Amino acid sequence: MYSKDLSKFFTPKSVAIIGASRDSKKVGRIIVENLLNWNFKGEIYLVNPNVHEILGYKCFADYSLLPVVPDLAVIAIPASFVIDVMHQIGRKGTKHVIIVSAGFRESGEEGKILEQRAIETAELYGIHIIGPNCLGVVSVEGNLNATFGSVSKHDGNLRFLSQSGAVATSFFDFAASQNLGFSHFVTLGNKANISEVDVLTYWFEEGQKRNFTNDQNLSTNRPIGIYLESIDDGIGFINIAAQISLHDPIFILKPGKSQIGKKAMQSHTGSLAGEDNVLDAAFKDAGIIRCEGLEDFFDLAKAFSWEEPPEGSGVVIISNAGGPAVVATDFIEKEGLHLAELNNKTLQRLKKALPIGASIHNPIDVLGDALAMRYFEALDAVLSQEDVYAAIVILTPQVMTEGYLTAEIIARLSNQHRKPILCSFMGGSHIVEAEKILNLHKIPNFRYPERAIRALGKMWQWRLRSVKKSLAIQSLSIGILNQDVSSINFDAVNDLIEIGKKDASSRIEDAKSCVLNSFLTDGIFDACGIKNPPSSPVNDIEDCFGFVEEHGSPIVLKLISPHLMHKTEYHAVKTGLYNKDQIQIAFNKLKNLASKLEKTHGFHAVIQIQKQVMNGVELILGIKRDISFGHVMMFGGGGIMADILQDINLKLLPIDRFNAVELVENSKVYKLLTGFRGMKPYPIRKLFIVMERLSDLVLNFPEIAEIEINPLILTYEDIWAVDGKAIVTET
Amino acid sequence: MYSKDLSKFFTPKSVAIIGASRDSKKVGRIIVENLLNWNFKGEIYLVNPNVHEILGYKCFADYSLLPVVPDLAVIAIPASFVIDVMHQIGRKGTKHVIIVSAGFRESGEEGKILEQRAIETAELYGIHIIGPNCLGVVSVEGNLNATFGSVSKHDGNLRFLSQSGAVATSFFDFAASQNLGFSHFVTLGNKANISEVDVLTYWFEEGQKRNFTNDQNLSTNRPIGIYLESIDDGIGFINIAAQISLHDPIFILKPGKSQIGKKAMQSHTGSLAGEDNVLDAAFKDAGIIRCEGLEDFFDLAKAFSWEEPPEGSGVVIISNAGGPAVVATDFIEKEGLHLAELNNKTLQRLKKALPIGASIHNPIDVLGDALAMRYFEALDAVLSQEDVYAAIVILTPQVMTEGYLTAEIIARLSNQHRKPILCSFMGGSHIVEAEKILNLHKIPNFRYPERAIRALGKMWQWRLRSVKKSLAIQSLSIGILNQDVSSINFDAVNDLIEIGKKDASSRIEDAKSCVLNSFLTDGIFDACGIKNPPSSPVNDIEDCFGFVEEHGSPIVLKLISPHLMHKTEYHAVKTGLYNKDQIQIAFNKLKNLASKLEKTHGFHAVIQIQKQVMNGVELILGIKRDISFGHVMMFGGGGIMADILQDINLKLLPIDRFNAVELVENSKVYKLLTGFRGMKPYPIRKLFIVMERLSDLVLNFPEIAEIEINPLILTYEDIWAVDGKAIVTET
Repeated sequence: MYSKDLSKFFTPKSVAIIGASRDSKKVGRIIVENLLNWNFKGEIYLVNPNVHEILGYKCFADYSLLPVVPDLAVIAIPASFVIDVMHQIGRKGTKHVIIVSAGFRESGEEGKILEQRAIETAELYGIHIIGPNCLGVVSVEGNLNATFGSVSKHDGNLRFLSQSGAVATSFFDFAASQNLGFSHFVTLGNKANISEVDVLTYWFEEGQKRNFTNDQNLSTNRPIGIYLESIDDGIGFINIAAQISLHDPIFILKPGKSQIGKKAMQSHTGSLAGEDNVLDAAFKDAGIIRCEGLEDFFDLAKAFSWEEPPEGSGVVIISNAGGPAVVATDFIEKEGLHLAELNNKTLQRLKKALPIGASIHNPIDVLGDALAMRYFEALDAVLSQEDVYAAIVILTPQVMTEGYLTAEIIARLSNQHRKPILCSFMGGSHIVEAEKILNLHKIPNFRYPERAIRALGKMWQWRLRSVKKSLAIQSLSIGILNQDVSSINFDAVNDLIEIGKKDASSRIEDAKSCVLNSFLTDGIFDACGIKNPPSSPVNDIEDCFGFVEEHGSPIVLKLISPHLMHKTEYHAVKTGLYNKDQIQIAFNKLKNLASKLEKTHGFHAVIQIQKQVMNGVELILGIKRDISFGHVMMFGGGGIMADILQDINLKLLPIDRFNAVELVENSKVYKLLTGFRGMKPYPIRKLFIVMERLSDLVLNFPEIAEIEINPLILTYEDIWAVDGKAIVTET
Repeated sequence: MYSKDLSKFFTPKSVAIIGASRDSKKVGRIIVENLLNWNFKGEIYLVNPNVHEILGYKCFADYSLLPVVPDLAVIAIPASFVIDVMHQIGRKGTKHVIIVSAGFRESGEEGKILEQRAIETAELYGIHIIGPNCLGVVSVEGNLNATFGSVSKHDGNLRFLSQSGAVATSFFDFAASQNLGFSHFVTLGNKANISEVDVLTYWFEEGQKRNFTNDQNLSTNRPIGIYLESIDDGIGFINIAAQISLHDPIFILKPGKSQIGKKAMQSHTGSLAGEDNVLDAAFKDAGIIRCEGLEDFFDLAKAFSWEEPPEGSGVVIISNAGGPAVVATDFIEKEGLHLAELNNKTLQRLKKALPIGASIHNPIDVLGDALAMRYFEALDAVLSQEDVYAAIVILTPQVMTEGYLTAEIIARLSNQHRKPILCSFMGGSHIVEAEKILNLHKIPNFRYPERAIRALGKMWQWRLRSVKKSLAIQSLSIGILNQDVSSINFDAVNDLIEIGKKDASSRIEDAKSCVLNSFLTDGIFDACGIKNPPSSPVNDIEDCFGFVEEHGSPIVLKLISPHLMHKTEYHAVKTGLYNKDQIQIAFNKLKNLASKLEKTHGFHAVIQIQKQVMNGVELILGIKRDISFGHVMMFGGGGIMADILQDINLKLLPIDRFNAVELVENSKVYKLLTGFRGMKPYPIRKLFIVMERLSDLVLNFPEIAEIEINPLILTYEDIWAVDGKAIVTET
């Protein structure tokens, strides 16, 4: 049935509160009151050895004395007593427990041990714990407010997961003031044995039998809002979120951007693909909308709950004032939307309905003296046009303005047209009453037009991803994808990695990782069908001249050693060498550098000669393993530009043709690849193949922690892995 | 005295309303009511030939019949009657007129003519007009609400300029709901003969005798908020704003970003330095804070009015909840602030005051059960530390939270410490009362912590600019600046420009502009002491070989013609030519291209040979003339990267050493110039000199509409203007 059946957290038939209290300030009392105030339909049992009754309910001295096995137990007693109580609960047979008590992992070493014991106790009896150190669970469906927060009971289609109780409290207060309802709200706290992945999985499985409120004013999906400070199982999270978000929008607030890991990385890919960038890529992958701050989060809750995401990006702005409409227009493009072009029929209707002086072109200005009916005419006209997918209605409080009535007609048109309408009734006290009407009819209002447009933009972003996903699936089914990926010589790769591992000199970081030198990575690329330019180790100048004889000039000379990851910094790469003089000078310099490095750093470096690849675009292509989300591919402009271009485009593995195209098209360097400034376009298809092969390589050799081709040079004829790096970790 | 004495708009002793009405819905009636409701202290005269009295005031049939010469006349009659009335006003002797009537330039051709006539009539009598098509003027100082908007009377230090009446209306409503006061509010409307520059100049001049409200809760400066859709006299605007903003913060909302001019430009500088980028540079120059949207605008009004901009970037966050504090922390760095490090003394105080479990490190968590006193202890401790310059106080409504009391103690500490405190009391109805207290004491509250931090960041940005300005002035006084700029050979430049102008083939765009070819720009750079690599026009291959004999290889061959501005697109540049074979092939190709171009495009092109500059960083340096703001310098990474790097750094002329340093340091390419990845730093001083000389050149030859060096190559030894373009317009 369910991976983890959490249904009794949301629709228990009986609830026991351990630590129920007479003191009206105590958490254990507030929970009881909340249960009663919400008219919980099941049975309520209170446990407290020191009192006989609370609010008319008998108190039991001990969990074992309860006359039934409660579906759900809520623990609100000091941390030190929790383990004992859990044994009682376990022996009794209750499988669902909320621990609101603090004093666990968040409070230091002692608490950490206590939490570990709680987890072990839970495992012993097969108990699911939400918490500890959480606010509790709200389920409007189950008439259950098992929290010590103040929550208004409004039915809705939203579901929430919050690691923080305070974010939840603020949200409850915000929601109450807007008449915004929801169905489930889980505060996770320390996530002892129920994590975000468990709750999402349950919601997904439960979603199969969709059966929620039939309120016509709500959107037809069940949006999920998530506030998380840590994501423990990144891959699990992304997998379940990707499934859910095909049907139900997920929006997340995940702070911690400023705490990007400062650990020095071996490759550019490692350092450029920082934690937060990977997070962005992972969320994008899963179709999760990322919020920038709390305002975004609260705004999207309202928008996704009350309006359907638009079917297209064409939007109309209707305003009774030019200024705010102009400001709004600025944000339309910024948020990935566009001002819909109105067709003749619509323009004719507007011309008839609006007075001279009004602007009938988008953004529509119905003028400052517009009464509600003028808004009605304009809004009805534009929403009737098929390729208008949403409307932004701006109202500024002017002398004649009928805020209240205008809100009513918007609600009517919203029901009639079934297209998203987002409002911005601006100002303070003058629009309070009108805003109440909008809230009543579940038309989202934002005090500033840019907020409305931002919300609509995010909704469109979600819709677009669904569309793209189905396009990708279509392309797959007609066989466009990955057709060019030939097989990789896995044995050869394996041998090369083994050679690298056996080379003691290649060990770094407590000998747990080893660096593969360029000769080895050259071999690996070769085994993947990724070409390297002709190259050879050279011992003396005659070797060099011989190489030039065979392959021609210009050539490159470089020092190779596993310990020399950043060759440029050591001036260990000499390019553009044409004649014997130049080659001789460069060779001598590298020879000197090599012996200097041997003396100062104690490692041996070899000189390599390589045919220089001319007239191509330098790219960087790398894959690194992220602690939370696994392997991630990075693509961008390469060479010296890798650092200053900040052309960081990431995608979680695997990479198929569809992903490869998307990565390249989103890059800054893309412009250079496709007939830029009169140049003929480069054969990008060759690049896609390299991307897919590198992905296949790492999927088959997950011990590769970092691998990078920099530069990868795409010429008009071919694509060349000019320099490579790889780090392999023990598995 | 005053450039334009506008004092009678703000403190008139008598006001006449032309078009006063009995109809309570009419604008002419509302203005009268507003005057009365605000207890205007002077005399009020009403003009309306059709009624005898309104609200107890006698109505005069005609302006000429008034018993006095009113200081100020407000016209609220249909546009077609306005000119006649203006003649009456002019003859009577009133010099200050507000025209609220619409139906002028904004309504089409007829209105345009009417407006022109109004301007001429005003000039005839020396009348200052505010409007037409405006909401009017508010002056709390003068007890004057000469608008038809609903404005609450609260004294304050803010001054406002708004082109849009609706933005003003929304702001009035917003301000009333927050108890936010202001001193002057001018809505400009069509700006017939009083523009933003006039009002700012008046405010600046009037500011010399500063004498405004002594409210201790207000900031000590007089912030100015500006909403403009068009800026007519860019240079005038920047000049006056720069003077004001040294003392009083100016924040502006100027929409229209999406309407960037689509006109194709001749140079990269022209196309990269788009209208909106220039606007940003101009505002930055003048120390004007630019708002992104209406929310920013309203937020900054409150923040600048009620709090002093911080003296440093070190901020402390105090919160009763971890989640919102973590979110807030994310925004600290983003907005250019940093979390202040608390010293031992402060930490000891916090340790004593806060319970175990609280976080005494910044961001400080006073825990969910914090009462007002705990906030007091924490806030008092951190504000006592000298290098803590501001505090962000976050409060989420939890069970024990004392919102009301906490607001009171914050007000007390604000008075005591005189450091900015910005609050974020989050939620809905639970914090309404507390917010009222904060507003009463003029402590800005924002419903989301990121909004508070954004406002604080903008305030710091303003302060920083003042600090920088004084640093710049210091540097100047000790003679660091522009010491290396030698004189330019102006005669030589003049001759070269004249040659260009005489060359009929160089004319473009209706012969109003002429393009100077590379030979001419080479000469101009030379006359400015900016080096060009050795080069020469070549007729045949022997010329080329001769050049190589003299200067060595590699060399570059290119086609030169005033009509060939985008050489790369025509494959008209061949680089990296070392040996005779390569040179021969390239020469032949260019020869063919030249004759092809002559046939297809009808212009003659010359082949130029140039010594190739090796091993340097390619830069772009250009100047273009902006319609509104005059000449602007652009600097960034050059060559092919100019397009994909989007390294657009702009500064209005003139450029001194201080500006040059700032432009280069803010660029993306800067990283490459200063010892990047083990390379030794380039001699950037040489670059500064070129920047200063180019600036001096254009200041002396303002007929240069666009001039650009691309690439400008900085090597370890020298700096080279490798390719130049210039457009000169008839003066």
